[in-house]
Amino acid sequence: VNRLELWVDLNYDITEPGVDFVFNIHAAQTPYQTLSNERLILNQDVPTQLNTDPCSGNRYLRLRALAGALHIAYAVTVDLMHHHADPVLLGEVPVHQLPIEVLVYLYPSRYCQSDRLMNLAMHEFGHLQPGYSRVQAIRDWVFGHITFKWNSSNSTTSALDTLVERVGVCRDFAHLMIGLCRALNIPARFATGADFGSDPALGPPNFQAYVEVYVGGRWYIFDPSGTVIPMGLVRLGTGRDAADVAFATIFGRVRSRAPLVRSVALADATHDIVPPWLCTQALSTDSGPLMPAITGH
Amino acid sequence: VNRLELWVDLNYDITEPGVDFVFNIHAAQTPYQTLSNERLILNQDVPTQLNTDPCSGNRYLRLRALAGALHIAYAVTVDLMHHHADPVLLGEVPVHQLPIEVLVYLYPSRYCQSDRLMNLAMHEFGHLQPGYSRVQAIRDWVFGHITFKWNSSNSTTSALDTLVERVGVCRDFAHLMIGLCRALNIPARFATGADFGSDPALGPPNFQAYVEVYVGGRWYIFDPSGTVIPMGLVRLGTGRDAADVAFATIFGRVRSRAPLVRSVALADATHDIVPPWLCTQALSTDSGPLMPAITGH
Amino acid sequence: VNRLELWVDLNYDITEPGVDFVFNIHAAQTPYQTLSNERLILNQDVPTQLNTDPCSGNRYLRLRALAGALHIAYAVTVDLMHHHADPVLLGEVPVHQLPIEVLVYLYPSRYCQSDRLMNLAMHEFGHLQPGYSRVQAIRDWVFGHITFKWNSSNSTTSALDTLVERVGVCRDFAHLMIGLCRALNIPARFATGADFGSDPALGPPNFQAYVEVYVGGRWYIFDPSGTVIPMGLVRLGTGRDAADVAFATIFGRVRSRAPLVRSVALADATHDIVPPWLCTQALSTDSGPLMPAITGH
Amino acid sequence: VNRLELWVDLNYDITEPGVDFVFNIHAAQTPYQTLSNERLILNQDVPTQLNTDPCSGNRYLRLRALAGALHIAYAVTVDLMHHHADPVLLGEVPVHQLPIEVLVYLYPSRYCQSDRLMNLAMHEFGHLQPGYSRVQAIRDWVFGHITFKWNSSNSTTSALDTLVERVGVCRDFAHLMIGLCRALNIPARFATGADFGSDPALGPPNFQAYVEVYVGGRWYIFDPSGTVIPMGLVRLGTGRDAADVAFATIFGRVRSRAPLVRSVALADATHDIVPPWLCTQALSTDSGPLMPAITGH
Repeated sequence: VNRLELWVDLNYDITEPGVDFVFNIHAAQTPYQTLSNERLILNQDVPTQLNTDPCSGNRYLRLRALAGALHIAYAVTVDLMHHHADPVLLGEVPVHQLPIEVLVYLYPSRYCQSDRLMNLAMHEFGHLQPGYSRVQAIRDWVFGHITFKWNSSNSTTSALDTLVERVGVCRDFAHLMIGLCRALNIPARFATGADFGSDPALGPPNFQAYVEVYVGGRWYIFDPSGTVIPMGLVRLGTGRDAADVAFATIFGRVRSRAPLVRSVALADATHDIVPPWLCTQALSTDSGPLMPAITGH
Repeated sequence: VNRLELWVDLNYDITEPGVDFVFNIHAAQTPYQTLSNERLILNQDVPTQLNTDPCSGNRYLRLRALAGALHIAYAVTVDLMHHHADPVLLGEVPVHQLPIEVLVYLYPSRYCQSDRLMNLAMHEFGHLQPGYSRVQAIRDWVFGHITFKWNSSNSTTSALDTLVERVGVCRDFAHLMIGLCRALNIPARFATGADFGSDPALGPPNFQAYVEVYVGGRWYIFDPSGTVIPMGLVRLGTGRDAADVAFATIFGRVRSRAPLVRSVALADATHDIVPPWLCTQALSTDSGPLMPAITGH
Repeated sequence: VNRLELWVDLNYDITEPGVDFVFNIHAAQTPYQTLSNERLILNQDVPTQLNTDPCSGNRYLRLRALAGALHIAYAVTVDLMHHHADPVLLGEVPVHQLPIEVLVYLYPSRYCQSDRLMNLAMHEFGHLQPGYSRVQAIRDWVFGHITFKWNSSNSTTSALDTLVERVGVCRDFAHLMIGLCRALNIPARFATGADFGSDPALGPPNFQAYVEVYVGGRWYIFDPSGTVIPMGLVRLGTGRDAADVAFATIFGRVRSRAPLVRSVALADATHDIVPPWLCTQALSTDSGPLMPAITGH
Repeated sequence: VNRLELWVDLNYDITEPGVDFVFNIHAAQTPYQTLSNERLILNQDVPTQLNTDPCSGNRYLRLRALAGALHIAYAVTVDLMHHHADPVLLGEVPVHQLPIEVLVYLYPSRYCQSDRLMNLAMHEFGHLQPGYSRVQAIRDWVFGHITFKWNSSNSTTSALDTLVERVGVCRDFAHLMIGLCRALNIPARFATGADFGSDPALGPPNFQAYVEVYVGGRWYIFDPSGTVIPMGLVRLGTGRDAADVAFATIFGRVRSRAPLVRSVALADATHDIVPPWLCTQALSTDSGPLMPAITGH
């Protein structure tokens, strides 16, 4: 078991009244990621709604802010009991056997235009043995061909741009890896968390974009940017790409300060709580399908 | 009440064994669109799965085809009891009051890059009174600025391409209208059906792409291509854009013949069954949310 | 006659030795734009080459800089004797009658993808009377549909991006206008100068991108961004688009400070020297073809 | 010496009167490519103009066609006396030493967006020894990463599209190679000729797009598509990319039939005339600069 303390601190200056916010900063709850001591502090006295999307399981906080400063502080203790698997045993699942709600992660999305990457994906990875190791090869290819550089991309940058310009941040690495997986009919989705174990030279801790790929009947974690210890990733949200799980989607004009994010591992040998480590096994925190497909008509 | 008979006929020549198909040709079932006498005939003796996606309500048929000819015939009788509304009463719903599962229809998608259309949408429609009439203005703008032309677009054509090249088919009109709505924070989604009432000069009946926009607490139907009688549209699927609801997604190489689609209105005055007509009221066949959001934490 | 004093001041910090620079900061020389008292001061003692491109007439200064500070100061006195014409008399020239060296300005270029703008151009301007007034209508359309905003574009922004995002700086206005002209088979090119008469609220004086269009047998000046007094534009270079006439193309990594540009009108009534004014006549400073086409084979 | 007979046959059905055509089907004349027995037959009795562009040396035929059939037949005997060079001796030329008229071939163009390819070019080729061998490595990379496939691209397909989709025809191979060379500050241009020695399985003879790169003080020939014998290429035109040297640019709507192109090698041992062969030396037919740069001011 890993135990992490997560803190998120967001600050905005709002110059017009009535700006709507949708936040996705709450940690997800799954059988493999359990939460305790969750706190949310808001400096404005406005109504908030916290909803769990029934399709994605993401937890969205919404509010309409007043003019002035908006400060949000969130903290939670997260216990991670990863599902571990031997990569050799994880095969790709044929399309006709995928759970119905996994199908959408085969389709191209705003930032992952897999429909245009099929030749490239077949040329580079088509000859490889299907399964986890092929997904790992895609991850390694993205890691090897793209250079990490702060401020090298923006909110319109897509997997195609990253493929051409060969530079990006973790979000861009994730989009390209997702696009390549989908181009080979392997379901892949975008996940957000807090980075853990990242090199301080890469800047202060921040939100982290990574990838989950569906092999062997589960969603497994990959970090194509190679900047974190995957076992330490606390999952906030998953979606088709960054459009779905922005930590803040803002409907109006505001001034934002950089978010403060901190993720600290606790250890307690007597309770088998150990810090995350770099392991070679496949890791998953996914609960599996949230609801059964309705079969028949 | 409108009653329509829908027939779909698909033909493929499959040259390699084991090609997976995902079809979205089954009519949706909602309280406002009820089905009877549904038939599916398949020339190959292979297992099939018919699943209803719990998030979208779309009904997906999957199978793995053998080499040789694949022929699929689907037919159904559909009763449409539209929800009618006075457009004047349908306002836009603030983001913080939207049902949680509607949020994703605010975000950009593969073919509807609303994130890049905000200035244009504000410039053209920002000064208009919010509500159904503004959505209608967007629909009219798309109809007025884009020229319908067969074979003028392909599977990679997006709303941005259509905006630049000013030409497209119904799918392209739909993508551009959706992109513009989302750019104004109005939820919009892509819907597929069978065209009804289209000009025979535009070619034989075919699948039809149209738009549903969330105003006044429901999804209302719009046809930006101006080629059909909206009341006669039988809904097959809805999604973020065409990527989600292709009538056939094919995982392998096959030769396809053009689909045959026919949609015929029945009339029976003694049972109040009348043919669809061009009406000025807002129309919806949506069931509303399929499942309640889980509120609180 | 207008007389302007032009000063340009460029500053770089060069961290690696041997960076090549190509500058296009020298004023062009034509029968309608004559130069006197031209000075160039360079803080580094390196060889320079000043060449006039025989095809464009642009004057390019090249040098290989040493590590350290690079400071370049250029100044010149420019006399402008515009060719004035009555817009009503300026017709479009049929393609088969264009001078051979004008043909390339019909073709799409990096930032002016006119091949994709034909439907839009025909839809908006195809019904208008050909000639200067139609070009003016294109200029007014661009001015009316695009919003001027600093830092809203970058070096990869093209006319298609500007058309979609509806925002840009003078360079973007120019690219879009050029693309629309070429889409109608009207030769158009990109010109650079120093802004004159611009609103100080738009920032300090800077280089200015504008447009020259070939009608009535000459290249006439247009300012689609509406920020300057066209008569006061001193021409530095012309090309297919911004790629050809960057004021500095740098082959290596350097730190740049914002260029200082100043353009001041002199007046001397006794010599008929008057300040530029906003006039409704068509203006040209072009010399006409630099060299005769070689006809026959 | 190589001697080739070149025939070109073009056929159009013109439905509206007064369509302008610009053809670039005449072989170029250089000291290394001399012409004899040149013939042009036209079925319409309309005036034609044949001009040599003073900047590119391309020979453009222009005419305004009448309604009806337009048939153009061109034939010429071409003697090629290539400049041969040892690749080892051909270095890259520093930007500040390039002839002034070569500079434009460093800049991005419509189909060769080199400004976006710099990281990729540096990553793949930045560590290689500058010179002909590095250009050959770029050519081999393009040949190895792109698959030749008829009808896989269209008139809007650019180097970026080809890089993403990994498929194209000779024109697309050329655009990508040019883009990569320019991204490394190596001047590169697009050339058109008639294919020679191509595999008949690739279809009937046709126009061929290839690449010329400026190294060692001359323009050398490269065929990134690997479909022809480079020594047998008769040069028609050169330009920044395909936009400049379309074999036919048509200003109006016409029906076109596929062009007929034939290029046959003659041999006459007594006069040292031999068929082209695949050779490992660097080949050039370029005359060098057509006119001296005007130096100084």
